This record gives sequence, C-alpha cells and structure tokens, in this order.
Amino acid sequence: MSRTNEVIQETNTAVNIYLKKGDQFAQKLIRGTPNGLTLANLTCGLFSLIMSMNGLHRFASLFILLAAVCDYFDGRVARMLRVSSAIGAQLDSLADVVSFGVAPAILAHSIQHWSFLMIIAFISFPLTGAWRLARFNVNPTHDYFIGLPIPAAGIVVALLALFSFVSPLIMIGLALLMISPLQIPKL
Amino acid sequence: MSRTNEVIQETNTAVNIYLKKGDQFAQKLIRGTPNGLTLANLTCGLFSLIMSMNGLHRFASLFILLAAVCDYFDGRVARMLRVSSAIGAQLDSLADVVSFGVAPAILAHSIQHWSFLMIIAFISFPLTGAWRLARFNVNPTHDYFIGLPIPAAGIVVALLALFSFVSPLIMIGLALLMISPLQIPKL
Repeated sequence: MSRTNEVIQETNTAVNIYLKKGDQFAQKLIRGTPNGLTLANLTCGLFSLIMSMNGLHRFASLFILLAAVCDYFDGRVARMLRVSSAIGAQLDSLADVVSFGVAPAILAHSIQHWSFLMIIAFISFPLTGAWRLARFNVNPTHDYFIGLPIPAAGIVVALLALFSFVSPLIMIGLALLMISPLQIPKL
Repeated sequence: MSRTNEVIQETNTAVNIYLKKGDQFAQKLIRGTPNGLTLANLTCGLFSLIMSMNGLHRFASLFILLAAVCDYFDGRVARMLRVSSAIGAQLDSLADVVSFGVAPAILAHSIQHWSFLMIIAFISFPLTGAWRLARFNVNPTHDYFIGLPIPAAGIVVALLALFSFVSPLIMIGLALLMISPLQIPKL
C-alpha cells in the first residue's frame, strides 16, 4: 500500500471515530429530551413560587401554564422517541406535585388573605394532588383517568389567578375532584 | 326464653356490633398512621414555604426539621405496624421533594440575594433531589444509600439557615452528593 493510501485510510478512521462519537452524543441528547422537559416543568414550578413570593402573581400563573406545556410534551416526546422510562415516570410525578400542587396553593395564598376556608383550600389542594399522583403511579389507568388529573386542577387555579381571582371553594372542589372515583376520558 | 333474657341478648348483640365497628375504626386509624405522618411531612413543607414568603426564616427552618421528624417516623411506624404500602412509598417521595428539595431552596432564596452561584444552587438543589428520589424509587437499595438522601441535604440547609447562614457553594456540593454514586450506610 502506498504512503498516500495509508494517510487517507488513517484520516477516514479518525473521521469515522468522530462521526460515531457525534452520533452517540446526538442519541444521548435525544434520549434525554423527555426528562429534560420534565426538569423544565419542575424549574417552572420553582420560578412560579419565586414570583408568588415577590407578589408577581401574573408571572406566577404564567410559569404554571408554561410548566403545563412542558408536562404535555414530555410524555408525548418520550413515546414518540420510544424512550419512555420508569425513572421518567417517577420524575414526572415529582415535578407535577410542585408545579400543579404546591405552586398554585402558594399563588392563591399570595393573592387571597387568610380565612378558615382558605387554610382548608391551601392544605387540601396539594395533599389531595399528591395522593392522586401516588395512587396513579401504583395503579395506572390507560384509556381514562380516575379523578381529575393534578395538572388540570393546577391549570384552572393558574388561569383564574391570571385575572387575580382566587376562590377557596373552587380549590376545595378541585381537591375533592382529584380524589374522586370519577372516570375522565383521556384527551 | 323469658322476655328479660331476650332483652339481654339483644343488648349484647347491639354492644357487639358497636365494639366491632369501634375495632374496625381503630384498625383503620392505625393503618392510616404512616400515611398521616407522610401528609404531615408535606404540610410542614408547605408551612415552611409560607414562613419563607413572610420573611420568617427561622420558622421556615423549624418546619423543615419538623418535616424530617415526620419523615423519620413514617417508614418506621409502617414497618412496625406491618402496613407498608406502595402508595405510602410514592407519597413519601412526593412529600420529600417538597419539604427537603423545594422548601430549603426557597428558604435559601429568602435569606440570600441573587447571584450567579445562588441561581445555580437554587435550581440544582431541588432538581438533583428529585432525580435522586426518582432513581431510588426505580432501583431501591436496602442496606445502603447511593448518593446523599434528600432529607439529609434538606436538614443541612435548614440547620445552617437557623443561624441565618446560606452558602450556595454548600448547596451545590449537597446537590452533587445527592446524584453521586457514593455508597452511604443506612443509620
């Protein structure tokens, strides 16, 4: 083999190694996208809390709605890419309890002053949300939901808060719907 | 059978029914104690967030430590009463991410002003905590922990905050320890 051919072959091998590494990196990046979206959901929940703390309740509502967008896409992207995982499902619940259970309760507290009903709403909303998530993780249903899903309840509170409206009665109603045996078809 | 005997028998039956109902209620109450403790853990996390929002950071720290007490006992009581359940385990993680992931991050934010390091600490602490919980739920270990457990990390931040001390570097270190492959023996 001539010297020139050897150099070409070596260059090709080096290029192939880099292409393979690039391909592996791209695959890793694609596989990580759904969990990345779930972590983005949790980050939006955290920023919603910060906004509520600083009295910026419209921004707090918007971060809950942004969390809902991330939550809508993470499962779908995972199924599309066929990279659904048990860790991903667990992470999804942990993000949901923060973004759609705790953040809406804190947002409501930042708008409405304390009252007896408000304390009941503030505690029951995240607690029933967590209970529903735990129950769903142990006994998942496929064609329908049992009880209102926690993101839907969180979205209702966030949408009302966009108009500075908080109703402890509506929150208690949503909390009861979350733990109700009601069958709700999946969208 | 005389009339008196009939009355005595009827009274005994009524007493027995009430005793049975009371016993069933007591059993239900005992079976519910561990999950009640887990929900108390989550409630302490919520109140820690409220205290941080109102600038009462010592109370916020104390609520995280109280959540840790509930967390310490829920699993132990469940094993003692032999009522450990899959829903209880799921609920425990959902409470932990709020009380020892989100609440310490918000507490730190309420004491320390924003800086680049603080933003990294504020986001990484709950995110790595959630990741660790998700990983542990999918691959539980029995004799040792892999990575620092999230309650331990939350307790460190709460104890430091009791003395109005927050260090983003320590928080980032704890976040890294949570997702590290370090084996830590169980107490």
